[in-house]
Amino acid sequence: TRNIELAVVAGDGIGIEVVEQGLAVLDAALAGTGTTISPTAFDLGAQRWHRTGETLTDEDLASIRTHDAILLGAIGDPSVPSGVLERGLLLKLRFALDHYVNLRPGKLYKGVKSPLAEPGEIDFVVVREGTEGPYVGNGGAIRVGTPHEVANEVSVNTAFGVERVVRDAFARAQARPRKHLTLVHKHNVLVHAGHLWRRTVEAVNADFPDVTTDYLHVDAATIFLTTNPSRFDVIVTDNLFGDILTDQAAAITGGIGLAASANINPDRTAPSMFEPVHGSAPDIAGQGKADPTATVLSVAMLLDHLGLTEESRRVEAAVEADLVERGARVRSTTEVGTELADRVRG
Amino acid sequence: TRNIELAVVAGDGIGIEVVEQGLAVLDAALAGTGTTISPTAFDLGAQRWHRTGETLTDEDLASIRTHDAILLGAIGDPSVPSGVLERGLLLKLRFALDHYVNLRPGKLYKGVKSPLAEPGEIDFVVVREGTEGPYVGNGGAIRVGTPHEVANEVSVNTAFGVERVVRDAFARAQARPRKHLTLVHKHNVLVHAGHLWRRTVEAVNADFPDVTTDYLHVDAATIFLTTNPSRFDVIVTDNLFGDILTDQAAAITGGIGLAASANINPDRTAPSMFEPVHGSAPDIAGQGKADPTATVLSVAMLLDHLGLTEESRRVEAAVEADLVERGARVRSTTEVGTELADRVRG
Ligand SMILES: CC(C)[C@H](C(=O)O)[C@@H](O)C(=O)O
Ligand SMILES: CC(C)[C@H](C(=O)O)[C@@H](O)C(=O)O
Repeated sequence: TRNIELAVVAGDGIGIEVVEQGLAVLDAALAGTGTTISPTAFDLGAQRWHRTGETLTDEDLASIRTHDAILLGAIGDPSVPSGVLERGLLLKLRFALDHYVNLRPGKLYKGVKSPLAEPGEIDFVVVREGTEGPYVGNGGAIRVGTPHEVANEVSVNTAFGVERVVRDAFARAQARPRKHLTLVHKHNVLVHAGHLWRRTVEAVNADFPDVTTDYLHVDAATIFLTTNPSRFDVIVTDNLFGDILTDQAAAITGGIGLAASANINPDRTAPSMFEPVHGSAPDIAGQGKADPTATVLSVAMLLDHLGLTEESRRVEAAVEADLVERGARVRSTTEVGTELADRVRG
Repeated sequence: TRNIELAVVAGDGIGIEVVEQGLAVLDAALAGTGTTISPTAFDLGAQRWHRTGETLTDEDLASIRTHDAILLGAIGDPSVPSGVLERGLLLKLRFALDHYVNLRPGKLYKGVKSPLAEPGEIDFVVVREGTEGPYVGNGGAIRVGTPHEVANEVSVNTAFGVERVVRDAFARAQARPRKHLTLVHKHNVLVHAGHLWRRTVEAVNADFPDVTTDYLHVDAATIFLTTNPSRFDVIVTDNLFGDILTDQAAAITGGIGLAASANINPDRTAPSMFEPVHGSAPDIAGQGKADPTATVLSVAMLLDHLGLTEESRRVEAAVEADLVERGARVRSTTEVGTELADRVRG
């Protein structure tokens, strides 16, 4: 028997509610498989910060590192200054654990209504770089609060960092039927970073000759996501553009209630982290209104990452069946989670 | 009688075709009004660069400065390395002429089909900052082409630059029925620039107490542009986020064939520049397929900027009438332009 040590960071707001259901489905998926799971809850987020002033200590991080994977709910609360938990906890996890592949599927499931009039088939995946770009925190300001304030933000991009994520994206494209990779950047304006990305895609393509590629400026990409999302297979892009495009991708495929993500360390030098794309949604927190489906689909990605392919498929199949049948029924967070767990149990 | 000295930068690809029609409509709008127009064509763009290696010389710029306004078609051609014309010509004009208000309406006209299933009423305007942010060209790279390459891009934001555009956006919001301003940024990640923007909006709000404000992260803004674009009245945002959101705005309101823009120098220390949001579209250039409507709507913005309010209204009314009646008719660039000019003549 195999035991999975799972670090659980429920976090803030609806994070707590959806993670509970994610864990219930995970239990259901592993029941009787010989694989067991030991979840360890980490007290991280707004409450911890208010109590102790800490976001993520070295000890927290060291302890999280000893786990096989992380399930995260959502981070952020209006009572905490903007950026404190995002930079000090969520992004710190992604950076410290070298989650350089931030994987976000954009898939319109059967039974789900898209806000697009003619969505067509939507089934792509965004490979968002997770450890570089404008997210590095390499900014600063002088004369803050005066009429002479200057505030800079530096996007840092390295050949090392770009190549490894581009290589991962090519491998994913190669494994898919359409074998197509779209680079999204803005190389006509951000010429230094953009040309590094472009040259890297061209160079790595030599190792994946059966993958076709094209390029879109990020502004044009938002147009195609509106008018012809079927054109996308795998998208590779930087940290910030990936943030923007994956929220738009969630919107056209039925909303962030359904959007899953995986922060992957492909070299497995540290645990990967699985989280819904949505935030902590303080306006509906604690009311049982949040849809746990995005978390459950993130659990499917977690199982897949751990090599539990069959279990992963069963979880995704449960969601697929639920989406076809849910219609306009209003269910609580727990109801959706329980029904999904029941379906997984079969 | 008043004479308008107009600098005309048709540029590349379809820019040449659409500007011709824009000028025809401009002539029609001014006929018999006592205001005349003297267009001066500037040979700028890909051909000039191939011939001379020049993008925009000091002499070009000095000459353009003597004009009352600029009408621009489109800049860019695949035969020129990416960034050369964008940075050396288009952005150089915007920066040198201090076009700090890049105004881009997002309006769904009657008769126009949105790709959204339930678009509702869409009538907002994006005030995109035009002279700062990640567009400043303050980047660089070392060890280019080696495995140790580092490529940086610096977003520069100043209190001076942010305040003036925020002030302009508040004034525009105040003049509109809904009096609402949405700041879009990403202050939970880009904390230095983001907090400068946020503090500035809060401070300037004191001078516009009847304007309500809210804030959206850029990723969330792409969701609302998909699910509820009616919520927007005036959006103020930085140069890069504005670039991205205005292409998405064009997509949901019928495409970039209809999206107009104005690069405004509100202090009138240099001529403002009016251009369609679309690019040079080399794939359809020279075939009479381009829709000149975006350019014609940009001409309406030009007339408005020059105080020719009545003439501006007539041009927009001609477009409105055309859009209601055009249906699925396929017309050439010239046909659309001619019909619009005829309508303007009345
Ligand atoms: C909360 C925020 C820091 C985060 C990001 O920008 O990456 C979120 O928007 C996401 O997409 O996971
Ligand atoms: C061509 C390019 C430099 C330009 C921009 O990014 O501003 C264009 O996309 C636009 O929106 O006008």
